[in-house]
Amino acid sequence: MNVIGVDLGGTKILARSIDVTTSKAKKRVKSPTPKDGPESVLDEIAAVVAEADADNACSLVGVGVPGLLDRDGVVSQCPNIDGWDNDVNVKAGLEARLDRTVVVSNDVNCGAVAEHRFGAGSGAADMLAVFVGTGVGGGIIINNELREGARGIAGEIGHITVTRGGRRCACGGYGHLESYAGRAGIEAEARRRAAGGEPNMLVDLAHTGRIKSRHLEQALLAADPVTTELVAEAVEALAIGIGNVATALDLQRVVLGGGVVDKLGQPFVDRIGESPAFGGFGSKTCELRLAERLDDAGALGAAIIASER
Amino acid sequence: MNVIGVDLGGTKILARSIDVTTSKAKKRVKSPTPKDGPESVLDEIAAVVAEADADNACSLVGVGVPGLLDRDGVVSQCPNIDGWDNDVNVKAGLEARLDRTVVVSNDVNCGAVAEHRFGAGSGAADMLAVFVGTGVGGGIIINNELREGARGIAGEIGHITVTRGGRRCACGGYGHLESYAGRAGIEAEARRRAAGGEPNMLVDLAHTGRIKSRHLEQALLAADPVTTELVAEAVEALAIGIGNVATALDLQRVVLGGGVVDKLGQPFVDRIGESPAFGGFGSKTCELRLAERLDDAGALGAAIIASER
Repeated sequence: MNVIGVDLGGTKILARSIDVTTSKAKKRVKSPTPKDGPESVLDEIAAVVAEADADNACSLVGVGVPGLLDRDGVVSQCPNIDGWDNDVNVKAGLEARLDRTVVVSNDVNCGAVAEHRFGAGSGAADMLAVFVGTGVGGGIIINNELREGARGIAGEIGHITVTRGGRRCACGGYGHLESYAGRAGIEAEARRRAAGGEPNMLVDLAHTGRIKSRHLEQALLAADPVTTELVAEAVEALAIGIGNVATALDLQRVVLGGGVVDKLGQPFVDRIGESPAFGGFGSKTCELRLAERLDDAGALGAAIIASER
Repeated sequence: MNVIGVDLGGTKILARSIDVTTSKAKKRVKSPTPKDGPESVLDEIAAVVAEADADNACSLVGVGVPGLLDRDGVVSQCPNIDGWDNDVNVKAGLEARLDRTVVVSNDVNCGAVAEHRFGAGSGAADMLAVFVGTGVGGGIIINNELREGARGIAGEIGHITVTRGGRRCACGGYGHLESYAGRAGIEAEARRRAAGGEPNMLVDLAHTGRIKSRHLEQALLAADPVTTELVAEAVEALAIGIGNVATALDLQRVVLGGGVVDKLGQPFVDRIGESPAFGGFGSKTCELRLAERLDDAGALGAAIIASER
């Protein structure tokens, strides 16, 4: 069965026709994400879908969006896309533009499903996927099905507490995983350290720009003391957070991906698994694996979710 | 459908015939738990079952045991029952003694299922049950089904980490929920405080015996400073631990029970829900409720699980 999978990102929109039973995909169509609000974004998605399915072979479109959405396809928050200030019914808006059925999902859930069916989660009935980038997102598969949750926001592992009264998180909470392991949390701490008299290579490399995953890699390889310490805290926070979910659910498989994990690679994943903080009962036989589907996971997962809805 | 439900506890064995579609039960049969090892325990369970089903009306028996077990009914650890030093096949042992089919489950999971079907979890498709007594146990219901997990030990919320590098847990881990909220963890800390020059009412009330839930209640009502502090830490630890699971799974309902919760009651549950530590995304619309099934939950849940296996 061929489905058009769309991955809506902050900088680009990807679309391709995908056979969801084999994951084989046709040529990828790519376009920059418009900066002038959601209506333009929907126009552009419709354009890339039309190009990716020029022969009108697919009646179904799955779209992964980087935001909070409800089951009807209304996206309420999309912080990485300029001008997305209000609720937008992405499903209705796209179905009006395309003569096709549209299923809208959260992009992190798309990544989790793609890894589960055709990646590092293959063969595991239950799985947690953790994506470490600017923030930390996650998706949970239970009995081979994506866990959506009471309000459709299950898997928000970035906002579980890993240390009592710890760092303040962007969401207002304290000690959340994301504030230790997400790139934005690491950057905030690195800049605080620099301002407080602890100069460090992360701030030096990024200057006034954002600290990127490659800066983390570079400063870690150079054994920069502050970076080494902040990455050790990220490892411990991930070990606690992942261990907690693995313990509560008695999971057998955890897949790690996202920009930070892609850059720091297998040694980073190994450190998490070997951390004494990766404790609890559930975690002892839980296997940690590096994600296998990289750029294509979003579109693939969106297509799979659409085909199963 | 009538099923014999058995609740094997450290001090007593309870059995009764229960209609699992209504939860109506016949007279409870009760006997002290033998202290001379598992074979005597199995003999005694067989005796109470025979008495509870004197007219041989039930062909199915559900047994809840306070230990770790596999899906075949082999109980490997049962720390509260004297002389249980090795693996015991409870299912096979009881089926050899009784001409009935026996289904063995973990007692905490039995309590969770009883609350979900006929207690404070009614109407919720998803639910976490947390039982706070000597330790902290839990059970998870997802899509109206008990989550068992890869090895059958899902729901061990007592061993999730609530504070990085915190108190050492009986299991060897650090900062686990159980070491802050379980009665044994609170007692260990109260005795450490007393030995370190902070006399407190908990130790005074218990003398050389165990600190009981009623001692906690009494010292808290008397505003004993150390007790007040330790209970505040228990509240915060429960808020973090429950909030983490509620966030990861996007749960709608949490039911709290067990000796400590029974004694400290609704105000204790309210404090957990109102704690700023009960943060994260999932917890904001998650309702905390006091367990409704008290002494009968174990036998009822064991009977329900048996009927659905």
